[in-house]
Amino acid sequence: MARNSSSRTLTFTLTIIIITIISSSHQPLALNHTPRFFGKFASSTSTIPSNSQPQFDFHYETKFFQQQLDHFSFSNLPTFPQRYLINTQNWVIGSGPIFLYCGNEGDILWFAQNTGFLWEIAPKFGAMVVFPEHRYYGESVPFGSKEEAYKNATTLGYLTAEQALADFAVLVTDLKQNLSAIHCPVVLFGGSYGGMLAAWMRLKYPHIAVGALASSAPILQFEDIVPLETFYDIVSNDFKRESSTCFNYIKQSWDEIESKGQSSDGLELLTKTFKFCQKLKSTEELTDWLESAYSYLAMVNYPYPSEFMMPLPGHPIKEVCRRIDEGPAGTSILDRIYEGANVYYNYTGEAKCFELDDDPHGLDGWNWQACTEMVMPMSCSKESSMFPPYEYNYSSFEEDCFKNFGVKPRPKWITTEFGGHNIHNALKNFGSNIIFSNGLLDPWSGGSVLQNISESIVSLVTEEGAHHIDLRASTENDPDWLVEQRATEIRLIQGWISDYHQTHKAVFDM
Amino acid sequence: MARNSSSRTLTFTLTIIIITIISSSHQPLALNHTPRFFGKFASSTSTIPSNSQPQFDFHYETKFFQQQLDHFSFSNLPTFPQRYLINTQNWVIGSGPIFLYCGNEGDILWFAQNTGFLWEIAPKFGAMVVFPEHRYYGESVPFGSKEEAYKNATTLGYLTAEQALADFAVLVTDLKQNLSAIHCPVVLFGGSYGGMLAAWMRLKYPHIAVGALASSAPILQFEDIVPLETFYDIVSNDFKRESSTCFNYIKQSWDEIESKGQSSDGLELLTKTFKFCQKLKSTEELTDWLESAYSYLAMVNYPYPSEFMMPLPGHPIKEVCRRIDEGPAGTSILDRIYEGANVYYNYTGEAKCFELDDDPHGLDGWNWQACTEMVMPMSCSKESSMFPPYEYNYSSFEEDCFKNFGVKPRPKWITTEFGGHNIHNALKNFGSNIIFSNGLLDPWSGGSVLQNISESIVSLVTEEGAHHIDLRASTENDPDWLVEQRATEIRLIQGWISDYHQTHKAVFDM
Repeated sequence: MARNSSSRTLTFTLTIIIITIISSSHQPLALNHTPRFFGKFASSTSTIPSNSQPQFDFHYETKFFQQQLDHFSFSNLPTFPQRYLINTQNWVIGSGPIFLYCGNEGDILWFAQNTGFLWEIAPKFGAMVVFPEHRYYGESVPFGSKEEAYKNATTLGYLTAEQALADFAVLVTDLKQNLSAIHCPVVLFGGSYGGMLAAWMRLKYPHIAVGALASSAPILQFEDIVPLETFYDIVSNDFKRESSTCFNYIKQSWDEIESKGQSSDGLELLTKTFKFCQKLKSTEELTDWLESAYSYLAMVNYPYPSEFMMPLPGHPIKEVCRRIDEGPAGTSILDRIYEGANVYYNYTGEAKCFELDDDPHGLDGWNWQACTEMVMPMSCSKESSMFPPYEYNYSSFEEDCFKNFGVKPRPKWITTEFGGHNIHNALKNFGSNIIFSNGLLDPWSGGSVLQNISESIVSLVTEEGAHHIDLRASTENDPDWLVEQRATEIRLIQGWISDYHQTHKAVFDM
Repeated sequence: MARNSSSRTLTFTLTIIIITIISSSHQPLALNHTPRFFGKFASSTSTIPSNSQPQFDFHYETKFFQQQLDHFSFSNLPTFPQRYLINTQNWVIGSGPIFLYCGNEGDILWFAQNTGFLWEIAPKFGAMVVFPEHRYYGESVPFGSKEEAYKNATTLGYLTAEQALADFAVLVTDLKQNLSAIHCPVVLFGGSYGGMLAAWMRLKYPHIAVGALASSAPILQFEDIVPLETFYDIVSNDFKRESSTCFNYIKQSWDEIESKGQSSDGLELLTKTFKFCQKLKSTEELTDWLESAYSYLAMVNYPYPSEFMMPLPGHPIKEVCRRIDEGPAGTSILDRIYEGANVYYNYTGEAKCFELDDDPHGLDGWNWQACTEMVMPMSCSKESSMFPPYEYNYSSFEEDCFKNFGVKPRPKWITTEFGGHNIHNALKNFGSNIIFSNGLLDPWSGGSVLQNISESIVSLVTEEGAHHIDLRASTENDPDWLVEQRATEIRLIQGWISDYHQTHKAVFDM
């Protein structure tokens, strides 16, 4: 089965992973009909699930800082309040480091809650902890309300990575001055898009931060730097390594869905098989829903039970494949697929039926970012992936973005601004003190830095790791490789801080 | 004599040096009544003096490139045509370096003509030469015309250094792709503000440029990084070293002017003494006119005759002081001062009288930049300078900027964005391949980097050098130290390029 999708982009967050499949040239960007992880069966960006209170020390004050809307121009633009969480309880006043988490595309509370590693190690470092929220997300919206901020391209225009980095730079500079922390080294943390921000911030603002832990940060997922099939190939391999029959069932299922959908009562039957609350409007809705589940499962394919967005068992892909493979004799492919998807969408068994369209806003900040500078082209290989084959088509993508946001993407801007091509040389020659940590099960690892570049630009790769697992709070189920990875990270960060103090001391002694 | 000036800022270009003294809290920013180097007695930014055709090889094509008005936002803004001069005659196609001059605040033709060093060495390097014009100057204005572009803060808002750097980055990335120059190393050049841009571009876009020659680039002339008196102290010392009596005559002259001005026909007398075409409106007009001459003389205090803006003898301060000191017996202080100023304003003897207000526009791009991010605070020491004592007052400065441009300066933004405090550590730890060249006679040298920072961040200081003399075309009168300085620069640039090719080769061989 070949879908008629004209373009597709895949979007993500640290914990709030949004799969947006821009489908069909005959329809608009289709943000409303594509499966989302926010909604009835998943946590929303704006609410923190009450049942997932973290186990680690998690206290903070909430504050707001007035930020320039456009740091790089002086046109008459309003300021906006940027929310940040701060904890100085463990901070060694005047000399302890500042741990700055680079907030990504969602509510900062959510990221704070899911970045237990930072909170756990802060006391050991005597560190101040700061979690600034990314502009246009959570409560950090300009123009007074999300509705106003998201109204059109003119108001959304300032939702960019460079502006967000400048927010962080201005905030931390101000904090250092006001908290008598001028000589305190700043260490950056971030996962996923937040990891990209952390790495970029270390590169662009090295006078502000001494180093960055960039976890699962696909800074190379632009233009043609990595093969466009990488992401979906990794997802597919995550399934294949568990079971090649599972992989094959999935690969066959798309044709099955397509042909079923073409029969007279096909959509009704599919709706029933997959237990949707409302009748499917197209087979595409179903394929998007399934593709999202598979991709997300690959990201959160953790070795222990987790509740990122969905409550899931440990090694969830293994469980999905077990159910797909073990369907009772005579079970149809689609029944098997349903059993597998059910692990992801309904592991607790509480859902009676599934909602597809549950985003009341329709617009979303990340979709804007994906349509402007975060243009990450992706294809699905006919051979190596289990997904419907799909060839990236930039023109259709551009057209859809213009239709939906009235904006023309600048697909080459990110690599112009931050580099990307020939990154090995560039990082080696000018960068330092960055950890790129990646788990190879994570489909985003394909667009990240997987090689040591220099003594201080280090790649920590774990074969069994998934999306920025290292940033999560420790658990008693942590495998040895994860314990070791975090210990290495701590050691490297200690090195940055100690180098900083030595150089600093040397200057004072001069 | 203590002037009641409330705030003052000093502005400059590579060759087109504008001294803007924001004077008197009772008046607006007073851009119209301050002495300018553009006008009847000086070259204008928009015309190239026909009598100063350079001696070096100077051929180029003029082209235009459509640039985003705001690279860092996606609001619905127009693009604008950026002019650039390009010469590929000597370029070794596909492998020769690209010499990129970072255009500063004026007509790019003027900079091209006054950067002979770059043109002279390009053939030896097999280099392509590119001179992009800085946005809002020359012919590179947005909104269709200079009038529209300079209308108000909303239209002027995008005249910033960061946007200019992004222009250069986008342009050179595009050129490399279109001219099959992907693997050609880019070397940055710049003098004065252009030198700041070159240094900052190497720091912010190291993936784009392999190194920067930043000549007379006062990247530390912000906040309180260097003492506020530095600039005027250096000007004063330039006079004192020639003659302490000269220094003293000048130092005494301000009181003389002030008391003369207070007599009934004082302004008329002063007008006559200094041969102004129109009657002086205040003594301040005269002091500004003189201060500008002294400051500019310090910048262009070259060892050989030059025609930067004004035709001047070699060692012009020596000549000014000779005339001040040698006034015939009984000559008044002000007659002596006139004789000195006459060297600067009328060395050819062609001027019959002097115009003070010759800027028909009133607004000027650099004044906007000085009122937004390029906030360079300066004071005049009562003890060590020969100028009227003056203490920098930020509040008045801010007030004046708001009155004139409707804009509030962001005096800490430049150091947040580019660093500056503790620059030694910052550059050492993350920068590489920058030459900071300075002549100690140049008052801007006080705000520049005067120490070697690392093996590849090098400071070339010449005791007898003035404002970016190294970038000028060679002459037969060049002193040995200048010949040596340029040879060192060539050697360092060769090193960057050869390192680049080696690393590049290593990657290909891998």
